[in-house]
Amino acid sequence: MNLILIFPDELTPESTARLSDYRAAHIRNVLRAAPGKALRIGLLNGPLGTGTVGEISCESVALSCEWESAVPPRPPIDLLLAMPRPKVLKRLWAQLAAIGVGRIILTNAEKVERFYFDTHVLDPEFYNARLIEGLQQARDTRLPEVTVVKQLKPFLESEPFSGIGTDCIGAPFSFPKVGKKLIADPSGKKTISQCLEPVPQRCCLAIGPEGGWTPYELEMFERHGFETVGIGKRILRADTACIGLISLLAERLREVV
Amino acid sequence: MNLILIFPDELTPESTARLSDYRAAHIRNVLRAAPGKALRIGLLNGPLGTGTVGEISCESVALSCEWESAVPPRPPIDLLLAMPRPKVLKRLWAQLAAIGVGRIILTNAEKVERFYFDTHVLDPEFYNARLIEGLQQARDTRLPEVTVVKQLKPFLESEPFSGIGTDCIGAPFSFPKVGKKLIADPSGKKTISQCLEPVPQRCCLAIGPEGGWTPYELEMFERHGFETVGIGKRILRADTACIGLISLLAERLREVV
Repeated sequence: MNLILIFPDELTPESTARLSDYRAAHIRNVLRAAPGKALRIGLLNGPLGTGTVGEISCESVALSCEWESAVPPRPPIDLLLAMPRPKVLKRLWAQLAAIGVGRIILTNAEKVERFYFDTHVLDPEFYNARLIEGLQQARDTRLPEVTVVKQLKPFLESEPFSGIGTDCIGAPFSFPKVGKKLIADPSGKKTISQCLEPVPQRCCLAIGPEGGWTPYELEMFERHGFETVGIGKRILRADTACIGLISLLAERLREVV
Repeated sequence: MNLILIFPDELTPESTARLSDYRAAHIRNVLRAAPGKALRIGLLNGPLGTGTVGEISCESVALSCEWESAVPPRPPIDLLLAMPRPKVLKRLWAQLAAIGVGRIILTNAEKVERFYFDTHVLDPEFYNARLIEGLQQARDTRLPEVTVVKQLKPFLESEPFSGIGTDCIGAPFSFPKVGKKLIADPSGKKTISQCLEPVPQRCCLAIGPEGGWTPYELEMFERHGFETVGIGKRILRADTACIGLISLLAERLREVV
């Protein structure tokens, strides 16, 4: 844990927070912090800051919080991912939040097994805990917005990549319009670098199921403005492909952000 | 499983193989192959090919093998990784083989806990099974060579990045000389793209432990010709960092391979 995330409703009007869960245990047992020690903290979806340890007991740790003025920008990458096997998705949540994505859209596709959606891995309580773990690893405060889409076609027709959304804790926020939409498929002739020329400010990346997108789906994405990007000859598991492709996107987008 | 890997000692002089383990179960139950069906196969550390299903029984499946003439090249990336927590390494083996690395060197470092080395995850029987799972996912035949280094300093002084090695099944092979050596650290000012200009034919990448490399270690790597590459502001878990950075390297190196 490289950052301790505080929830807005944990803050008193005097800007103190009293933690009593795994974060308090981490401060006591891993950081071995004594009163007066300054810790790196963040406000969920808000600024980074410094928490000065106050009273420490077996039950809780009090932090006096000071916040920076700027809020970290929301990562400029949205991921549209065909619903992977629950076992794979379980491991992926924290990694996605750590590597940095603005939105995670999990969608049905022709080659997705229907029973994949009947999993506790899609419970907000389950995935928010994993996402927060990833944010605390990477020192970010921006909780990715998660959307579960059971019907891909009407979703793509709804112009979903701009406008207002609601994040996981119910707060509204507006997304800047997506500058570039990519779909990963072995049929793609261009690399990520070639597709991102000129470099956009924001990008949505669609990654298919283990069996791949069908020709019908590929054509539908293309009709909605997605460009096909090649991914080399190796066939990767969904989690490996996500981390690899998002890293490539992030390096390119960093050049303009 | 996108490829069925055959071990050299499973091949008869007539180029048939009789499988009776999980590969036979996969052919029967997932591929539902009948006699005469052609399957994508590979010879471990050898060529890709086609296996025509012969006799099928509850116990075994016979394949008649034909091989392509070319052998896939060994991936041009060597990974020198400070030994991660065994739980993280356990998940990483298959992903590393899938994404494609030539060698995996696991090393001690000042911020690596000594007990990490006392794990079954470092047993060749354990990791070779995971590596083969990754190769069968990615359709590759080249088993990464694994080296466990308990003392980093003498290892770096031994000129380890060229010459002859022995792979996991005991066959000798020669490594082309490493063209470029990089060490990932937050202090690095250059990106991967900037470090790989001009693009080398081969690259070794060193990735540190969760607490990072110490100044002494960084200096030692630099003395042995490693250039420090920046990795952005986000702090990633070892597995996420490996997949992300190797993807970036692979995309750059693909341009010349």
